[in-house]
Amino acid sequence: MAIRQGRYTLMLPSRPVITGSAAVVGKKEGEGPLANEFDSVSQDDSLGEASFEKAESAMQRDAVIRALNKAGETPDNVDMVFAGDLLNQCIGTSFGLRGMDMPFAGLYGACSTMSLSLALSAIMTDTAAANVCIASTSSHFCSAERQYRLPLEYGGQRTPTSQWTATAAGAAVVSRTGSGPRATAVIFGKIQDLGIKDANNMGAAMAPAAASTIKDFLSDTAGAPSDYDMILTGDLGTVGSSLLCELLMKEANLDISGVHSDCGIMMYDLKNQDVHAGGSGCGCSAAILCSYIMRRIREKSLKKVLFVGTGALLSPTSSLQGESIPAIAHGVVLEAD
Amino acid sequence: MAIRQGRYTLMLPSRPVITGSAAVVGKKEGEGPLANEFDSVSQDDSLGEASFEKAESAMQRDAVIRALNKAGETPDNVDMVFAGDLLNQCIGTSFGLRGMDMPFAGLYGACSTMSLSLALSAIMTDTAAANVCIASTSSHFCSAERQYRLPLEYGGQRTPTSQWTATAAGAAVVSRTGSGPRATAVIFGKIQDLGIKDANNMGAAMAPAAASTIKDFLSDTAGAPSDYDMILTGDLGTVGSSLLCELLMKEANLDISGVHSDCGIMMYDLKNQDVHAGGSGCGCSAAILCSYIMRRIREKSLKKVLFVGTGALLSPTSSLQGESIPAIAHGVVLEAD
Repeated sequence: MAIRQGRYTLMLPSRPVITGSAAVVGKKEGEGPLANEFDSVSQDDSLGEASFEKAESAMQRDAVIRALNKAGETPDNVDMVFAGDLLNQCIGTSFGLRGMDMPFAGLYGACSTMSLSLALSAIMTDTAAANVCIASTSSHFCSAERQYRLPLEYGGQRTPTSQWTATAAGAAVVSRTGSGPRATAVIFGKIQDLGIKDANNMGAAMAPAAASTIKDFLSDTAGAPSDYDMILTGDLGTVGSSLLCELLMKEANLDISGVHSDCGIMMYDLKNQDVHAGGSGCGCSAAILCSYIMRRIREKSLKKVLFVGTGALLSPTSSLQGESIPAIAHGVVLEAD
Repeated sequence: MAIRQGRYTLMLPSRPVITGSAAVVGKKEGEGPLANEFDSVSQDDSLGEASFEKAESAMQRDAVIRALNKAGETPDNVDMVFAGDLLNQCIGTSFGLRGMDMPFAGLYGACSTMSLSLALSAIMTDTAAANVCIASTSSHFCSAERQYRLPLEYGGQRTPTSQWTATAAGAAVVSRTGSGPRATAVIFGKIQDLGIKDANNMGAAMAPAAASTIKDFLSDTAGAPSDYDMILTGDLGTVGSSLLCELLMKEANLDISGVHSDCGIMMYDLKNQDVHAGGSGCGCSAAILCSYIMRRIREKSLKKVLFVGTGALLSPTSSLQGESIPAIAHGVVLEAD
């Protein structure tokens, strides 16, 4: 059963296991540096569906089915799915998982959703409230772009600080028993808002949330950045990543630069793929975590990773109404078996 | 710690306590039959804010602060907030709770959100993963109408099966210790979609989800409808409520008609308030549960209530793309102390 350590952190003594995980991505993501890591690369971002929203649903469903297969599980053995996405009313998820007949809790954490779903799955299994959970999420460049910004056909110029919503989905099966990477601690973040209003600079809006969660976690656990092979943020991109390192040095004298990686920076070849400050979208960190990272933890080339998913909790409406951007970050510690 | 009973139900042996709850509503809701139950009735649905979205945020924040005050708690003692709303990217919640500095998990369950947030809060406290949680949600007629349907100024005709989104927010503080109504069991629903495509008939779309969850719950617990003083659905309205009773009789020979109530029917004077099939919106069941119902459980005039929040997981985009409406229902059993 989960044990509270310090003000915000929960230690998971039973060490729930990620028994299977899978990542499904689009064409551009399959041309990036992690191309060979993913379970499936679609050569057509419509996935043969009639709309990009339906394509996103198909992608998330595909990731969940692949993760279940790898874990040797079937839907009728799943006690709980925690999942969400970026689309209005989270239709990527509800339509993707419809018909699979698994108990389902819908989440909205913007790009922090993978860490939120994984954290809740880990607590549910650690406390024996569930034997098998699924954590999953997705994003799609084409469905996100037309919802949040402009019609794709408009071909608007993007600012240097903007990030590219990844066409990607990731899913992980979390179990009480089995072998694989283990979730050993989680921390839920608090909403941070330092007044950033530029919806084309999500990295700057989210960096304070990541800093807050990392600071709280290391304080709760009396830990140091060097205790981790990697502190992996989900989707700060280049701008947000520098700000995160700067904030942690300034506010808490914490130097994470030696162990810090960011999924937004890892997803694309930043020099040649025209993604400006890097990748973003729920699916970006989900796909990297559920492929590259889980594989390296299984192979023990990474032994202890603090994964901190970051999300910007704005909407086009809030931006049009002149609001700043609240952000949040949740953390999960993953360790080799 | 939560104990699984049957395939889907979790019994909560420590019986987490709702130590405080509050409901804040708009003008029309304050003119309905439950007018005297609510903690605050706003005479101006803008709540003095510059937009209806900001008004919704203010309302949810108000409900949370009132619930905390009644429970004698402060935000720095809260381990976790589970909350969400109907607005795109759940901005009613993220902007409403911003600055309160509490660990936050964002949910999206459409009108099932109160049952989802309460169920997760109850599990977290029952398993000692948290000592104090908050479950909260909100909806606002004016922000929902213009997002889901038409500009308010358009004054479109509404169909007889349509429901009226309540301007309302509800919040409950769930604790490991204290006195008050107790959450003794929860069940998470599975997505149900029987092919209903009429976005003006949510009741019909959601009834099968409520039926599925009630059936599973009574089967898991070997219980009967008569074991409960009330089986309270969240927002099926008149159309959905008749369908629910019919479905349960037909599929499982369960007659709930003697103990069934529905928040969508309770919120308004259906004859005189021009709301057609009844109320809906996350805030509708949240406000009724967090005032009228909790008060009667505290006073023991209700001893055992099965609350089943129902949500339609569609979006305007999915409807325009010709999709049917997936729905879900989660259940929580509340008992007198």
